[in-house]
Amino acid sequence: MPPSSTPQTPTSPDSVGLVQSQIMRFDQPLMLECGRALEQFELIYETYGELNSERSNAVLVCHALSSDHHAAGFHSDDDKKPGWWDALIGPGKAIDTLKFYVVCMNNLGGCSGSTGPTALNPATGQAYGPDFPLVTVKDWVKTQAMLCDRLNLPKLHAVVGGSLGGMQALQWSIDYPDRVERCAVIASTPKLTAQNIAFNEVARQSIISDTNFFEGDYLSHGSSPKHGLMLARMIGHLTYLTDEGMRHKFGRDRPSATNYSYDVRNVDFEVESYFRYQGDKFSELFDANSYLIMTKALDYFDPAANHASLSEALSQTQCRFLVISFTSDWRFTPARSRDLTDALIAARKPVSLANVEASQGHDSFLFAIPRYVALLSAFLTSPLLKPKESAHAD
Amino acid sequence: MPPSSTPQTPTSPDSVGLVQSQIMRFDQPLMLECGRALEQFELIYETYGELNSERSNAVLVCHALSSDHHAAGFHSDDDKKPGWWDALIGPGKAIDTLKFYVVCMNNLGGCSGSTGPTALNPATGQAYGPDFPLVTVKDWVKTQAMLCDRLNLPKLHAVVGGSLGGMQALQWSIDYPDRVERCAVIASTPKLTAQNIAFNEVARQSIISDTNFFEGDYLSHGSSPKHGLMLARMIGHLTYLTDEGMRHKFGRDRPSATNYSYDVRNVDFEVESYFRYQGDKFSELFDANSYLIMTKALDYFDPAANHASLSEALSQTQCRFLVISFTSDWRFTPARSRDLTDALIAARKPVSLANVEASQGHDSFLFAIPRYVALLSAFLTSPLLKPKESAHAD
Repeated sequence: MPPSSTPQTPTSPDSVGLVQSQIMRFDQPLMLECGRALEQFELIYETYGELNSERSNAVLVCHALSSDHHAAGFHSDDDKKPGWWDALIGPGKAIDTLKFYVVCMNNLGGCSGSTGPTALNPATGQAYGPDFPLVTVKDWVKTQAMLCDRLNLPKLHAVVGGSLGGMQALQWSIDYPDRVERCAVIASTPKLTAQNIAFNEVARQSIISDTNFFEGDYLSHGSSPKHGLMLARMIGHLTYLTDEGMRHKFGRDRPSATNYSYDVRNVDFEVESYFRYQGDKFSELFDANSYLIMTKALDYFDPAANHASLSEALSQTQCRFLVISFTSDWRFTPARSRDLTDALIAARKPVSLANVEASQGHDSFLFAIPRYVALLSAFLTSPLLKPKESAHAD
Repeated sequence: MPPSSTPQTPTSPDSVGLVQSQIMRFDQPLMLECGRALEQFELIYETYGELNSERSNAVLVCHALSSDHHAAGFHSDDDKKPGWWDALIGPGKAIDTLKFYVVCMNNLGGCSGSTGPTALNPATGQAYGPDFPLVTVKDWVKTQAMLCDRLNLPKLHAVVGGSLGGMQALQWSIDYPDRVERCAVIASTPKLTAQNIAFNEVARQSIISDTNFFEGDYLSHGSSPKHGLMLARMIGHLTYLTDEGMRHKFGRDRPSATNYSYDVRNVDFEVESYFRYQGDKFSELFDANSYLIMTKALDYFDPAANHASLSEALSQTQCRFLVISFTSDWRFTPARSRDLTDALIAARKPVSLANVEASQGHDSFLFAIPRYVALLSAFLTSPLLKPKESAHAD
């Protein structure tokens, strides 16, 4: 629900227009953090803008829990909605496709075209289903780097992501320090809190306790844990919005001016219809096993875990950082962005932090909020910083 | 989980000791707000302290969503835990049983002994199940007044409640202005926000979409929507606690120091075990139809609905008010207590508001936080206030 008053169409001057997804196939085995391997896999991705002759203007965009590789533009003239980050990607926008070659891929384990639980397991000829290995943020970044290799992008001008995408951007700066020049971590966190994990756990239990889950093997039963996935989405969705924002949008409005239904199964308020509808729609489009994997990847993310501190984990990074939080985000609060920034400062790294006033909660990162757009745009065109060889050189 | 270091026992000097529940039977038909009637019903209740000879020291305590009539003391020497508000009710405590005669009943529609969905419907000889009518805060207050009639308590020294209990206290002041002398509304709200309603709706959908729900008729199927009720409780429980409090209690602690499980169905963090365990325990004890009714009653509560304003709805009240919120409560935020207080001030009513520093979120009202105890205790022993006959009398 972008707030722009003029709806985007493929012919809007600031739209990337009609775009096509591409698929890259990898036949070498991929060793995953969990200890298991995938013998082969495919990644679906899109690109927007032109790669310059120096191959130095690539911006990798990483997606969040429920989105995918379709970040901007339209797949056909009939498309009702553009890609999920269309408000920020396009000619003259925050991630300016007149300047940058933007790459976005669907993460491994997803359900939008990259190999995941709904893909055929070549070893069995059946869908992987619950046998698909649990992938992590580190695994995603590894496969993103493999895709960049294939696209002959040895260095990235920037890696940018919001929420779970911000975690991937951060992991890039740690795992491939010499390949990332700028890293923008937006509405994200260096690790989940107990409350974050608990919300994810309720979402997982919703799916797992659905009688149509069949221990994850629902596809071979011709079934789907739709109700569980709907509940999981409703719970997640609630944490992306704010009490204040929902008050403005719905208040206590009722679908009809009649009396209460006095029936526990009935809808009495607009906000109930909205969440039911959104949850139901999501459950038709998304794969439950993918959802489970994504939430576990969120829970596990903690780059400081094998280090003395987060600061130490970040000590080998070589890029500039921009960290952006939003005032009304209670899923990944501004305090978490401060934690990350403090750790980067302690590690003597160039970092800028901005806490942007916004009323849309965690979802704020999806909107073209002027200050946010200006900050991200300026950061992406900032010069690189290198420590001087010696403090006495001047 | 009261924070007191010395656990309460029936022989603790500040405990009300061993208590017994009593049952009051009503054979006159009860007309409910939904338009349906109950031909007969029972209310289970407890009392603590002694009624004075003037019958003027009765304090009615109203319970919240998942609690009941057992507010203080122990049912047997083997009881591991006292009543749910034992931290505040007892000799010398905030609601001092040396001074007051405390009454607490299980609300109609509940599942702890008062007539509700698990009770036998005399018309059918079967449990009411989903046929039990939807009761409201107004209905509860009506039955509480009927119980007070039977106990020969024409006036209440005070009505006190937290959360949904606070709504009942407020409704008392409106519906029985000449029977209430003091009204303490704690961690409550004059109406639910859209976010509150959405959380309740997710909880209801959890129960209703459980295949063992059988349209509410699970008892006659010898079944129970346990998973759905567990999820509903987990969701509710999450909104009673705070991110900060959970960080202190659980952080990212793990049950074992081993690697992650890399299995979406497994527990990896302590906080997951805790919520699963608490949700599971609750689902063994509580009735799903009761839970559904209670959440609808919460959603419907809005005493201002049939008035020009909340202030007008409160215009006929005659009692003193104490409104208490807790700084970390994000379910019913301090802003909601301010809304109520502003309306009472606009209505020229005597009201005091306190926003108490506390880290336990919505659950704060269950704890004997010193400032909160002092405020409630002082309020309960404050003199009554009456407007002077004329401003010129002096």
